[in-house]
Amino acid sequence: MLFKVRPAAKEDCKEISRMILELASYENMTDQVKITHEELERDGFCPNPFFECLVAEVPEEHQSKEGVTIVGYALYFYTYSTWKGRSVYLEDLYVMTEFRGKGIGKGLLSKVAEVGKKKQCVRLQLSVLDWNAPSRDFYAAKGAQDLTDSEGWHILRFDGRDLDNLANEAPED
Amino acid sequence: MLFKVRPAAKEDCKEISRMILELASYENMTDQVKITHEELERDGFCPNPFFECLVAEVPEEHQSKEGVTIVGYALYFYTYSTWKGRSVYLEDLYVMTEFRGKGIGKGLLSKVAEVGKKKQCVRLQLSVLDWNAPSRDFYAAKGAQDLTDSEGWHILRFDGRDLDNLANEAPED
Repeated sequence: MLFKVRPAAKEDCKEISRMILELASYENMTDQVKITHEELERDGFCPNPFFECLVAEVPEEHQSKEGVTIVGYALYFYTYSTWKGRSVYLEDLYVMTEFRGKGIGKGLLSKVAEVGKKKQCVRLQLSVLDWNAPSRDFYAAKGAQDLTDSEGWHILRFDGRDLDNLANEAPED
Repeated sequence: MLFKVRPAAKEDCKEISRMILELASYENMTDQVKITHEELERDGFCPNPFFECLVAEVPEEHQSKEGVTIVGYALYFYTYSTWKGRSVYLEDLYVMTEFRGKGIGKGLLSKVAEVGKKKQCVRLQLSVLDWNAPSRDFYAAKGAQDLTDSEGWHILRFDGRDLDNLANEAPED
């Protein structure tokens, strides 16, 4: 199938928002999604954006059952390693169910790698859930190392009241 | 002990570079550090910087045995959750051995939380190695959740030839 991968425009945020919900639904977590398309527009299309996004688009004649032509997305941002330097982090990679198995996910992933290399990034990182075998297999087949298994890295998070408490105890300027 | 936490200036990059090596030495990984202070200057002090950094400074009369007054740093950047929005990620937090136990690490961490809150971030995330019990205890005591333990998140990485291969297979624009 023909498809095109291109940088998302501000006008694509409604479609991206729809797919964020579809991805959360696959993970049985739609109640967790608090982001609106207005917030995506604000945070991704400002000076110094918090993220960048690619979308996969198919021609009108291949549109989905629901009549959409934007059928996948990859949302990423730049991070930094104090050992190695610039890195790119893939937050979400998603392709609609009826468009899977056609190389669209691989196309999006490769494009993020290419964009990262052009920015002199030396790493592409992402996180997967341990029960998500299809995703783990997909990335492993393309050469990803599992740093939690091999080096023992754990992800920690402060949010809600714990984050507020920390911030409130910051030393004065 | 009196100490001050302030945003790093470009002129601090040599000191930050020294401390990056000290931290890697604690992890027995100094051979992994490829970053120079020139790269830190380039990547952290440009438009659209790849990271931000805070340093902890003590008065001259409390300088270290080696005569330095910049005794700790916190290097962080902004990330994005497609469920929750803006987040801040703490890449490194370090305090020189002879200055530990004085609240400097906590001061740096709290300041990163405060900076993040001011940017409307709803999360502060970081990674720790499973064998690093002192760090895990430090963060847990302040309210951090371990998402690898509780939700099963694993960190994956592409680098070197695997990243090149991915990038080379990107679909054409």
